[in-house]
Amino acid sequence: MSSRPLNLRTPGPTPLPPQVREALARDMINHRGPEFAELIRECTAGLKAIFQTQHDVLILTCSGTGGLESAVANLLSPGERILVVSIGYFGDRFAQIARMYGADVQMLSYEWGQFARPEDIAARLERDSRITSVFVTHNDTSTGVMNDLEAIARVVKGAGKLLVVDAISSIGSVPLPVDAWGCDVVITGSQKSFMIPPGLAFVSISPAAWDKSRAATMPRFYLDYAQAKRWADKGTTPWTPAVSLFYALRESLRLMLAEGLEQIHARHRRLRDYTREGLRRAGVELFAPDSHASWTVTSARVPDGMTSKELRGRIRAEYNIVLAGGQGPYEERLFRVGHLGYVAEADLAPVLEALATVLGEAPAPARVG
Amino acid sequence: MSSRPLNLRTPGPTPLPPQVREALARDMINHRGPEFAELIRECTAGLKAIFQTQHDVLILTCSGTGGLESAVANLLSPGERILVVSIGYFGDRFAQIARMYGADVQMLSYEWGQFARPEDIAARLERDSRITSVFVTHNDTSTGVMNDLEAIARVVKGAGKLLVVDAISSIGSVPLPVDAWGCDVVITGSQKSFMIPPGLAFVSISPAAWDKSRAATMPRFYLDYAQAKRWADKGTTPWTPAVSLFYALRESLRLMLAEGLEQIHARHRRLRDYTREGLRRAGVELFAPDSHASWTVTSARVPDGMTSKELRGRIRAEYNIVLAGGQGPYEERLFRVGHLGYVAEADLAPVLEALATVLGEAPAPARVG
Repeated sequence: MSSRPLNLRTPGPTPLPPQVREALARDMINHRGPEFAELIRECTAGLKAIFQTQHDVLILTCSGTGGLESAVANLLSPGERILVVSIGYFGDRFAQIARMYGADVQMLSYEWGQFARPEDIAARLERDSRITSVFVTHNDTSTGVMNDLEAIARVVKGAGKLLVVDAISSIGSVPLPVDAWGCDVVITGSQKSFMIPPGLAFVSISPAAWDKSRAATMPRFYLDYAQAKRWADKGTTPWTPAVSLFYALRESLRLMLAEGLEQIHARHRRLRDYTREGLRRAGVELFAPDSHASWTVTSARVPDGMTSKELRGRIRAEYNIVLAGGQGPYEERLFRVGHLGYVAEADLAPVLEALATVLGEAPAPARVG
Repeated sequence: MSSRPLNLRTPGPTPLPPQVREALARDMINHRGPEFAELIRECTAGLKAIFQTQHDVLILTCSGTGGLESAVANLLSPGERILVVSIGYFGDRFAQIARMYGADVQMLSYEWGQFARPEDIAARLERDSRITSVFVTHNDTSTGVMNDLEAIARVVKGAGKLLVVDAISSIGSVPLPVDAWGCDVVITGSQKSFMIPPGLAFVSISPAAWDKSRAATMPRFYLDYAQAKRWADKGTTPWTPAVSLFYALRESLRLMLAEGLEQIHARHRRLRDYTREGLRRAGVELFAPDSHASWTVTSARVPDGMTSKELRGRIRAEYNIVLAGGQGPYEERLFRVGHLGYVAEADLAPVLEALATVLGEAPAPARVG
């Protein structure tokens, strides 16, 4: 095992800044008292700045998948027809959740590695007027493909439908001005761009989404938006919150606002280019097309004659670098490098070097004939 | 404001031992890797020891209320008749959740301050054979009343019904041998007896409960037991877990097992007696009857001529001690002293002293006539 410090390069959880780690170690307070009221107030204001929204932003104690479920449970009624646009594992998950709750789920699925085409969405919405809402993944972590959400939002809002966005691995690292683009519900998780541990989900809710939720009859209690809002207005949460993660969030939001949203976005775009160039130089075939390559995670094909597990095992054993494998059908055929949150070129350089060395040594695939 | 360190005496969140705070500050790991597999394995084994069970124990990333909801969503089907035994705020919450999901909820409610009588439950079950399951609160934090769960379990299991227990403020501090008493589903939260921050729920599931869950049709995804179990067997969780809280839990379980379950229980019983005696000496009227007084939280009446808020405000301002107020209809009429988790007589002595001083000074209620 390498004696280097761990270099965690999965697309979440991501490494924690020292200020965040210090905050996590703080002792408990009463979540019904004035200190917590000040804490949730500052966290909510910071999140609104990152989401670039005047809408309500709620903080739920659950991970990103709980955030996705919250949208289904709060916005829909059984039998209601929705369109789920899927470009990978997490789009499919959104559909699974909605089906489990009894929604009538229409799929617009793309092959893994492809992006969603706004004109396809427009055509589906025109053909099927019963669709009330469109659920879409901004950046699918499983493929490293980032959709053109601005263009998608234009067609969805143009058709007068509700737009629900899984922004778990995008917002906070890549531009997603919620109000300017007209997104109704935007969901993310704490362990991605926000540089804190997993356990919180953040959800923005437009006035149209609030209207829809008031008529929605899916069962919900723990993840109920109306309860969360009612108690947040009083400076607390309806159920006991993950207090430590609120401490951490306050620190990370201070760091993010000090760096500046444009600077954060520019850094992530730069790191995407840096990672892709480095992998290309190492002879690796990238999975996502240049036009829609994710700013937060780069997916690449494992060379023939090797599994993802073998490749990542060597990188871990020899360099103490943790990469992510593929997901679903691509489990052993892809590896993924996370570059979001608390990350800079200096964290990625050793990764690219390690991959170049290990893959340079990989035996050429056997050719017959 | 007092310069003393904060003495948090709410019934959860509770103060954190230093080992737990240190663990919380650890950097992230991949929740799909070998370190997390070892972490969840040790946490699960420790929880089984505390639950005194051979049943599965699952760790969910949510607070205790999410744990309560998980039981409704995993065990029941719409229209199914259940009996909810309520002695306070949290019994009512269990009923609210089940109603929201469309269960046919029959109530057996007691006045606040009273305990549930096993013979009443037996009579209800005999009268109504359509009831499939009984939901009961072991210790209602809102009133400081602790039910005789062993006797209740005997009648519920004697009638062949499923027994679901809200043990959020009991298990880990008071005896609740899950298998010996025949409890099917037992739910607790991380911020009570387990001395770590809120954000995790722990749920034990008997073979009979597993059978029932396979036939149950309530919608569930994030809180699905079968998914949690399938992934736990592979050393991970289906959705990203609150990794920091797992670090903390491992440390707290080590502390708990080192102290020993019997010793922990004895300490909590002693602290109950210590608190009640101290409050009585201060002239305070206790709310729960001696026979069923909680080992983890003591509720007491605020003297006439004062609100709970006023009393707690003075105790906070002058002594830096945080007490809990009442809940629901008793919001201003009760105050509550938490004595569970990381707590000893030395933490409670200043609380009793402060209350004696402040209440000794309280003006006698005006008497007319």
